Amino acid sequence: MTQRIRVGIVGYGNLGRGVEASLALNPDLELVGVFTRRDPATLTPARPETRVFGIDALDGLEDQIDVLILCGGSKDDLPIHGPELAARFSTVDSFDTHARVPEYFEAMNAAASGERVAIISVGWDPGLFSINRLYGEAILPEGDTHTFWGRGLSQGHSDAIRRVPGVAAGVQYTIPSEDAIARVRSGERPALSTRDKHARECFIVLEEGANEDEIRETIVSMPHYFDEYNTTVNVITAEEFAREHSAMPHGGFVIRSGESSPGTAQVIEYQLTLASNPEFTASVLVAYARAAARLGARGQFGAHSVLDIAPALLSPETPEALRARLL
Amino acid sequence: MTQRIRVGIVGYGNLGRGVEASLALNPDLELVGVFTRRDPATLTPARPETRVFGIDALDGLEDQIDVLILCGGSKDDLPIHGPELAARFSTVDSFDTHARVPEYFEAMNAAASGERVAIISVGWDPGLFSINRLYGEAILPEGDTHTFWGRGLSQGHSDAIRRVPGVAAGVQYTIPSEDAIARVRSGERPALSTRDKHARECFIVLEEGANEDEIRETIVSMPHYFDEYNTTVNVITAEEFAREHSAMPHGGFVIRSGESSPGTAQVIEYQLTLASNPEFTASVLVAYARAAARLGARGQFGAHSVLDIAPALLSPETPEALRARLL
Repeated sequence: MTQRIRVGIVGYGNLGRGVEASLALNPDLELVGVFTRRDPATLTPARPETRVFGIDALDGLEDQIDVLILCGGSKDDLPIHGPELAARFSTVDSFDTHARVPEYFEAMNAAASGERVAIISVGWDPGLFSINRLYGEAILPEGDTHTFWGRGLSQGHSDAIRRVPGVAAGVQYTIPSEDAIARVRSGERPALSTRDKHARECFIVLEEGANEDEIRETIVSMPHYFDEYNTTVNVITAEEFAREHSAMPHGGFVIRSGESSPGTAQVIEYQLTLASNPEFTASVLVAYARAAARLGARGQFGAHSVLDIAPALLSPETPEALRARLL
Repeated sequence: MTQRIRVGIVGYGNLGRGVEASLALNPDLELVGVFTRRDPATLTPARPETRVFGIDALDGLEDQIDVLILCGGSKDDLPIHGPELAARFSTVDSFDTHARVPEYFEAMNAAASGERVAIISVGWDPGLFSINRLYGEAILPEGDTHTFWGRGLSQGHSDAIRRVPGVAAGVQYTIPSEDAIARVRSGERPALSTRDKHARECFIVLEEGANEDEIRETIVSMPHYFDEYNTTVNVITAEEFAREHSAMPHGGFVIRSGESSPGTAQVIEYQLTLASNPEFTASVLVAYARAAARLGARGQFGAHSVLDIAPALLSPETPEALRARLL
């Protein structure tokens, strides 16, 4: 591929910054610019050569951008702006509201079907974990799939503890149970609920004069979020919080444990250990941007999910080179 | 899919038996029969309902079999019989002579291009490991891929120790180095050779009067096979050998360790723990037989590797159902 794939980033939070970093590692893709709904003058891109534009600057660039990577949120942003943009550009996004995937797919498919490609729900879960669930089920139809998340920072649970009066700062890590993982890996095929499989660990900084015992109790008994889990609360200083808890690690496991014949245990395990959740998700988005450009060049328009995309489409190399090297 | 996919098995060794067992777990596929170059009367299938035919019985069944699963060996069988059969039937095989994959692909592609599909090199390595190498490289272009094999029985090395005079029976297990795995998992990105990453463990039964010390020395110093590895030789009784060493376990790891930006470590790990290597390989072949039938129905004729095949083609479910459930 001599012509580079021209990519635009829409939205410049942690995910958009991760895409910017990832594009720098992929010489067959080039960054046209970041497009933002904020005032472009207020953004300072991580790389000095990155150009920042207002979202309206996309008007008229339909033929100068091969793929837009949509880095907005799944709750308020993608459902509205995704289809608007997919009607005009090929897109890749990380839509992750599980229950709404079918309707979002339909909306993106309707928008893109003219002459654009939209790859939705790209990332690791949904995304790479979904792919591994599928391979596991298809290869070992007699079996169980278990997903474990963590050790990783949960945004929703961190928000919940920060809303507790007296908490000045807080983060929550989801921690997979080593015991549960060992049981699944053994091929034992245990029945485990999400709460059997995970513990929750909180680190909080207290406001002056806050009642530590009361706050601990409020957190561990919080319905839905913590009450059914084994939850620990660690009170730390603001300095330690800033030093130790500003990264966004995450990861997890998908384990398919099955039998190929009665009594013959086979276990497939996929594991991610991520120092930065948004940077990794961004890296997956960039690989699928390459696939989107190729699907567009082949005329395979409309919406696709990661499940519909052949692995070779993600690589800059030719199928011939990949077969010779990887098989 | 209301019409079942009609499958024939060619060859009835461990792999063919595994395919027979796997088909019983996949209700959307049906087994037409086993086709053998041996005298069919000498074969006793594992399932009483399985019909066994001579290979010539395939003549005239071109319209009654959707996919043949070729269970012959890569050295003498597939290079000759693969293209012959691929010209008449859609096929799936586990061709695994790495250096010859490109020429085998070309031969199968030429044979199948009329109106058949040939999926080559299906299994776990080559196969699922190849897919995971590709995903890892594409998502983390700045990184290293390490493959570890084992703990598993190595057929070639077991054959080598059985050829040592005085050895009545023997097996060799390849064992991945825990230390090397830990270093790769940590994101350290060490430079490791295959022999740094694996040890070799042998279990042998001696012939009467054999010189144990001499035999140990012959094995551990055997060029190419053992001399450069940390090799242990355990002498056991024929009873223990029969009891403990008749299964064919295997497995391994593909670990991609990379950085999404300088200093941000991301690790992707894929791991298989297999009680039966041939049964697992057979389970992968059967899932890809489903893909072969679908590619044929769409007119995507010619040869394909696992890298060219979208995950959703392996599942009996529709893309809509998979999206709703797995994303």
